[in-house]
Amino acid sequence: MKKEDYMALALSLASGTIGQTSPNPSVGAVVVKNGRIVGLGSHLKSGGLHAEVYALIQAGAETKGADVYVTLEPCAHVGKTPPCAQLLIDRQVSRVFIAMADPNPQVAGKGINQLQQAGIHVEVGLGAEEAAKLNEPFFHYLKYKRPFVILKAAMTMDGKVATQTGDSCWVTSAEAREDVHNERAKYDAILVGSKTVATDNPHLTVRQPQNGKNPIRIVLATHLEIKGDRHILNNAAPTWLICGSQADVELFRGKYPHIKVIQLKSKEIEINTLLDALGNHGVQSVYVEGGSQILTSFIQANAFQVCHWYIAPKLLTGQDAIAVTGGKSPLKMKDGYQLVFEAVEQVGRDIKLIARPIKGVE
Amino acid sequence: MKKEDYMALALSLASGTIGQTSPNPSVGAVVVKNGRIVGLGSHLKSGGLHAEVYALIQAGAETKGADVYVTLEPCAHVGKTPPCAQLLIDRQVSRVFIAMADPNPQVAGKGINQLQQAGIHVEVGLGAEEAAKLNEPFFHYLKYKRPFVILKAAMTMDGKVATQTGDSCWVTSAEAREDVHNERAKYDAILVGSKTVATDNPHLTVRQPQNGKNPIRIVLATHLEIKGDRHILNNAAPTWLICGSQADVELFRGKYPHIKVIQLKSKEIEINTLLDALGNHGVQSVYVEGGSQILTSFIQANAFQVCHWYIAPKLLTGQDAIAVTGGKSPLKMKDGYQLVFEAVEQVGRDIKLIARPIKGVE
Amino acid sequence: MKKEDYMALALSLASGTIGQTSPNPSVGAVVVKNGRIVGLGSHLKSGGLHAEVYALIQAGAETKGADVYVTLEPCAHVGKTPPCAQLLIDRQVSRVFIAMADPNPQVAGKGINQLQQAGIHVEVGLGAEEAAKLNEPFFHYLKYKRPFVILKAAMTMDGKVATQTGDSCWVTSAEAREDVHNERAKYDAILVGSKTVATDNPHLTVRQPQNGKNPIRIVLATHLEIKGDRHILNNAAPTWLICGSQADVELFRGKYPHIKVIQLKSKEIEINTLLDALGNHGVQSVYVEGGSQILTSFIQANAFQVCHWYIAPKLLTGQDAIAVTGGKSPLKMKDGYQLVFEAVEQVGRDIKLIARPIKGVE
Amino acid sequence: MKKEDYMALALSLASGTIGQTSPNPSVGAVVVKNGRIVGLGSHLKSGGLHAEVYALIQAGAETKGADVYVTLEPCAHVGKTPPCAQLLIDRQVSRVFIAMADPNPQVAGKGINQLQQAGIHVEVGLGAEEAAKLNEPFFHYLKYKRPFVILKAAMTMDGKVATQTGDSCWVTSAEAREDVHNERAKYDAILVGSKTVATDNPHLTVRQPQNGKNPIRIVLATHLEIKGDRHILNNAAPTWLICGSQADVELFRGKYPHIKVIQLKSKEIEINTLLDALGNHGVQSVYVEGGSQILTSFIQANAFQVCHWYIAPKLLTGQDAIAVTGGKSPLKMKDGYQLVFEAVEQVGRDIKLIARPIKGVE
Ligand SMILES: [Zn+2]
Ligand SMILES: [Zn+2]
Ligand SMILES: [Zn+2]
Ligand SMILES: [Zn+2]
Repeated sequence: MKKEDYMALALSLASGTIGQTSPNPSVGAVVVKNGRIVGLGSHLKSGGLHAEVYALIQAGAETKGADVYVTLEPCAHVGKTPPCAQLLIDRQVSRVFIAMADPNPQVAGKGINQLQQAGIHVEVGLGAEEAAKLNEPFFHYLKYKRPFVILKAAMTMDGKVATQTGDSCWVTSAEAREDVHNERAKYDAILVGSKTVATDNPHLTVRQPQNGKNPIRIVLATHLEIKGDRHILNNAAPTWLICGSQADVELFRGKYPHIKVIQLKSKEIEINTLLDALGNHGVQSVYVEGGSQILTSFIQANAFQVCHWYIAPKLLTGQDAIAVTGGKSPLKMKDGYQLVFEAVEQVGRDIKLIARPIKGVE
Repeated sequence: MKKEDYMALALSLASGTIGQTSPNPSVGAVVVKNGRIVGLGSHLKSGGLHAEVYALIQAGAETKGADVYVTLEPCAHVGKTPPCAQLLIDRQVSRVFIAMADPNPQVAGKGINQLQQAGIHVEVGLGAEEAAKLNEPFFHYLKYKRPFVILKAAMTMDGKVATQTGDSCWVTSAEAREDVHNERAKYDAILVGSKTVATDNPHLTVRQPQNGKNPIRIVLATHLEIKGDRHILNNAAPTWLICGSQADVELFRGKYPHIKVIQLKSKEIEINTLLDALGNHGVQSVYVEGGSQILTSFIQANAFQVCHWYIAPKLLTGQDAIAVTGGKSPLKMKDGYQLVFEAVEQVGRDIKLIARPIKGVE
Repeated sequence: MKKEDYMALALSLASGTIGQTSPNPSVGAVVVKNGRIVGLGSHLKSGGLHAEVYALIQAGAETKGADVYVTLEPCAHVGKTPPCAQLLIDRQVSRVFIAMADPNPQVAGKGINQLQQAGIHVEVGLGAEEAAKLNEPFFHYLKYKRPFVILKAAMTMDGKVATQTGDSCWVTSAEAREDVHNERAKYDAILVGSKTVATDNPHLTVRQPQNGKNPIRIVLATHLEIKGDRHILNNAAPTWLICGSQADVELFRGKYPHIKVIQLKSKEIEINTLLDALGNHGVQSVYVEGGSQILTSFIQANAFQVCHWYIAPKLLTGQDAIAVTGGKSPLKMKDGYQLVFEAVEQVGRDIKLIARPIKGVE
Repeated sequence: MKKEDYMALALSLASGTIGQTSPNPSVGAVVVKNGRIVGLGSHLKSGGLHAEVYALIQAGAETKGADVYVTLEPCAHVGKTPPCAQLLIDRQVSRVFIAMADPNPQVAGKGINQLQQAGIHVEVGLGAEEAAKLNEPFFHYLKYKRPFVILKAAMTMDGKVATQTGDSCWVTSAEAREDVHNERAKYDAILVGSKTVATDNPHLTVRQPQNGKNPIRIVLATHLEIKGDRHILNNAAPTWLICGSQADVELFRGKYPHIKVIQLKSKEIEINTLLDALGNHGVQSVYVEGGSQILTSFIQANAFQVCHWYIAPKLLTGQDAIAVTGGKSPLKMKDGYQLVFEAVEQVGRDIKLIARPIKGVE
């Protein structure tokens, strides 16, 4: 195998663990000695061993003179685990190939420096683009102290998400709905509004392929207006409610002690305040599933990083149907929110558009 | 060149004339003698020579023993021009390759029979699929006596076509708008509602690459409610107004004698009645450009053959914005109108979805 | 249609006639008036009308103010036909889109100048690359006064073209052999050596899809050593024999008066002398089909522009088998003849490699 | 992630170890609990832990109720390690997804049976095709008790591998030569003839990206005719010499005790006898690099499974040059060895054809 192949394997190891390592990034490592892979590792969960540690343990006595491929700069600080840079030095590896330097100021090239000072040959940049993409929410959070926001919509070709009666079974195909479950599993949290909870009574859990690792279920409920029979109040996954300053938090906590309630200081839930609060509580990524009003708030606050738009080959019609966005529109079309399409995928019989906001409008 | 190559050239000749031969289909012909092309022809306009005639004229003395490739069965009846089948026989061609038999009952295999009885070798089917696609509206009209209907929409990712003020400059990119002009030129007629005329005052002409061959501009105006300053009343292209039984047609005709008015017997304009009327007036294809209410009527009448959906990477938001469809929605999502995506194209920065209705719903 | 589409159609018209217009280039023309195609033309044979003439005749009264798309600069000199530039002026066309200026010094921008001085809008360059490729042999001949040389080989994976007994039935698949027939039809001449004539007794005619337009059959026979029963002596196609200074030309001409004999001044047939002679006789392109010795001579003289290499998924083995090239090899691998692969195609079960020589070696 | 994604990761883990696990196959395993990867494993070398063992160890306490994805049926017999099927049962996993059942008669469904009898849900077939391809040489050896044979050639477009002087520096590009090094690392042995050793004095080691895991160097030398200064006699990799019955083995062993000598009973080295002998010595795959005579012997014995044919865009010419194959050819082209092209790749400026023999000829 070539260097590129070894790094590709390390990246595969990392990408398998997206969504399960938060608040840590996904990292993979491969140890190669004399053209043979002697160790493989992936960081599996916060508090668990780092990818390099697993790989070096597996390599055992064969680390001396070995090459190590790792998707992120090895840590140099004493955290929950001893620093990996020192371990690589102790194990007398010969060369370390690093996809990208750690953007975390706590590490910031320190790992690379330590390795180099110990005489280890270090190369940075092989597979950098994939590595950056892999942990995009982690890097976003590191920089902005706010979660990376994904807006998800599943609509008909004419922009409807439900009929006048609120019926939305089903806009998209089974394949698209399965894709949504796969997406949910990648993020720290799923977010919906209280109306969606009232109308659809969703579980907001991950159903594929096992019961799944469940993200936090976040519900925006200004007045904690959630009826007691709603699925999101069960124990299937952690649930956080976000409310405004006038909600009766004590009453709610008395009834539902297992639910976390975050009360904002403002009467209404303003999106930027919300994202600051979620950031303070360590949420690195949030997958916003609607409904219409919630999506509108995020769009109008310019507070999102990417859109996942599932479009079904279906026309519903209806001024009275529920549209994917609502609220008040800008007066001019040129004042709309401009994005750029990044990808178009066929998912079952539906189309999935992936779009990102661009600075400024045409 | 191979047989396939000659037929491909004949198909290119035909496809260059889409939109300009109505009520005739587009047809191309190639005459080959001893491995050399000796004649090329394309039917250019109704009343003009047939493709085979052009090609045989160009071939001159070289038709004896030649091969002829033609995209549609040669005509056998005496029409505006003498029958092509007889001409092929007179010119003593050796073999005729026909992409598809004529579905027109007036011809229906007669041309093929005549050729065969004259001892000419005939092969049918080479390039049949492309040939059928090429003249799809013509074949549809032949079968149903109603125009082939294309619904066109240009909307934001959230299904809006204009702001609350009606501003729609511009939803889509210049490339997408140019594509619309190219599409317009392919069909017999463009159709909009009187509201669109009132709000946008469109020209509804083809602006690329020259002034263009202009389709008929059809406006649905139940009460002939068109103000005198509207562009569609000019002479840039033929204009037809469709009105209900209570409109004052005489008054209108007095003011605008160059405009054709078709009055339906019903008070309101019902889509199926409309299509029957257009069919009676010989309209083979109609490109429906909106607005929202018109698109809704066609969808709810299940009266369309294909949708061209331009989606801009833009979010507008707004309950008050104008959505691509309106009216009353079905009560259940499963009662929406089910289509299937046939193609997805990138046009400039926009996406163009092409979808066709399927029988039944999921 | 867009400008690009009209030019693409003109290029299709031209490409249909490759191989039948020599010594003229292939040219196509499309006349467009108000968004409708009103004239189509292709130059069909030397002495016949130019593409523009056909297209303008077909357009009839509609040329005034029309756009014309043509794949090569219209001629300005009085040749076998009156100059097309003047005709375009007389017909009062509005704009002329020209894929590429004529590299022929006899024309060289004169057509463009005439048009511009008459006030016609001229644009050059739309589709230039395809237009240049289309007539590559013509342009090569114009520049070098020698034919464009295509070396063709059909060999096994181990470089064999025949067994020790000379048997070569068949190295490649029927599809590949059909492809060869299509290629033959594109060029002025096919060239083989007298040994190939002796061993294989080939027809060297084009067998698809009719009897085909046959290129000149050129045989290199230093001493006119062709037995009387060989197919190439028949009348199925013109045959030229090339011989050295010691051949008895008079005797041969007496026996075969329909065969053209070109006697070189040297005792042996040297490739560069040969190409000069063929150039003098107006041969613009020559498709060299072997055998081994002939291919070797062309390669070692560095006298070829492109290689068409058909490789069958077959191993023959055999030091005694006939290899695709022979002669004496360079002493060093680095002194071999360096090419670059331009295309790889699957043809039936075989691979067709297209390669071109590059200047200098690695 | 979906089931397909987990199995794809297991296959990546396996494919990273191709060439380093012989005589065992490459196997990868992934353990998933509640939608989180909790264990990853790959079998790294003969005698080392099986993939499932690594993965289960890493999963620790989380195996109960987990899903396991493994690229080959878990072993059920007591080998160098305890059986994996029992371990999976002991660890109380819930479901096991197996890409393909083990074709080894020693296992043959026993692992699957054990799992099922213990009440574990087993699914076989996810990723089966990739899994089979991954260990193709292993499965071939299992069935035929002979090595899987890859014939490799690097030749010019005219089938030459060296000039008359034997110079072959370089036929192909650096990229193609690197590709050869990557291929070498995948197989148990590299094989050349004594002439290649005499002429080229090759190292036959793997030079990328480290010193590499070196396959056995096998040299066919009927009379042990290897001069003492040849690189293959060094200790850089194991070397085996194959000789005929008349070679003086004792003398050679005295001089080169570190070289393994396998003496065949026949005077000459017959290919089928050779493959039986290599099979007896446990060689599962052999990459035959030439020279010409060796390749010819394998082809004429119909003793190969796949050809890797590197073709440089270069023409050498020369009857005296060394052709890729020699020997005596069949008398008829139809008696050549028929293959089918499986893939065509561009490697640097060269083409790599991959072909496999088919039964029977055209
Ligand atoms: Zn670490
Ligand atoms: Zn006709
Ligand atoms: Zn001219
Ligand atoms: Zn095992």
